[in-house]
Amino acid sequence: MRYFVITGHKALADGSFKLDDIAGGAGRADILARCVNSAFMLSHGIRKDAEIYLVFEGGDDSPKTVRINGSLVRYLNPDERSTASLLRNALLKKIPEGKEAVSSPGVFVSKMSFYDVIDMLAGKGSFVYLKEDGSDVRGFDFPENPIFVLGDNSDLTQNEEKALLEKGPSTICLGPVSLHADHCIILVQNEMDRRGL
Amino acid sequence: MRYFVITGHKALADGSFKLDDIAGGAGRADILARCVNSAFMLSHGIRKDAEIYLVFEGGDDSPKTVRINGSLVRYLNPDERSTASLLRNALLKKIPEGKEAVSSPGVFVSKMSFYDVIDMLAGKGSFVYLKEDGSDVRGFDFPENPIFVLGDNSDLTQNEEKALLEKGPSTICLGPVSLHADHCIILVQNEMDRRGL
Repeated sequence: MRYFVITGHKALADGSFKLDDIAGGAGRADILARCVNSAFMLSHGIRKDAEIYLVFEGGDDSPKTVRINGSLVRYLNPDERSTASLLRNALLKKIPEGKEAVSSPGVFVSKMSFYDVIDMLAGKGSFVYLKEDGSDVRGFDFPENPIFVLGDNSDLTQNEEKALLEKGPSTICLGPVSLHADHCIILVQNEMDRRGL
Repeated sequence: MRYFVITGHKALADGSFKLDDIAGGAGRADILARCVNSAFMLSHGIRKDAEIYLVFEGGDDSPKTVRINGSLVRYLNPDERSTASLLRNALLKKIPEGKEAVSSPGVFVSKMSFYDVIDMLAGKGSFVYLKEDGSDVRGFDFPENPIFVLGDNSDLTQNEEKALLEKGPSTICLGPVSLHADHCIILVQNEMDRRGL
């Protein structure tokens, strides 16, 4: 499985945003929607071996985490608006205490924070931190179930980075130019595709 | 310069679409908007050495071509909706006979067809056709001013491909998996960035 964890530092966890304003009032939920596209979209289908965790860290009702699983997801299209609609529907769901709610097939929502997510994933694979000073992905020896961790349009906070570094992640970069999170996901997917992983 | 030409086979040239419906009624203008993102967006800026030609081939008023130049463009943001708005504004412009109209800084619109675009670009660089049976981009010797040509969610038509092949393009592929046009652009940009081109 390829896991992706993206922190939406200002992304509104209460789902009270308009689909016309996902790049503004939603706290840059557009970035998260594009990361979903990069994580799953193929020309003729969906990547079934991918799972994404989007951490909504903005607003009073934060944090919440929307999880999308590629082998279960339905109604996922490549455009930002329809993806943001899936995310908003999840954020508007009532979440049972300490549990995860199903929003639509393959789309789940919980009250997990970034710290909860990485603690939970620690047993499932090996962390890979995408960071500009990392070693080049092209020489990287991918672990079996990589858990790629990225910030949205701002880096992980100091505390988030500290918690991640305590997990002993590999640190990789994708090239000489600093890129958006969704572009980084495309590049890492391509490298794994080329290796047949 | 890195040139990109994308054919929007059903993309509505008259601009009569709603921004809420760019993936539907607009004839998949969402794909074109994502290609604009891939052509220009860097983490901290815009690629000034890129120019994109989006050919709108759908509806009665077709064809039209929207050209965006990275060194001139203003008001360009990464999200699909605001990009679609720039494109729609251009499509709604009155175009002087045989000329190109300026819609907003760096955004231009003309009545050029795909054939007009490739004829016009032929003097400016060398064509590179992105196609699944091409040779691997990683071994590709990039020409000085590459003109990358891609279809949207469907391949070039037979006639379009024939016209392109008459220009003697190089043909390259990006990896073992068939990808969306905007993802292909990310991969080709990364390869050029790595070579310092």
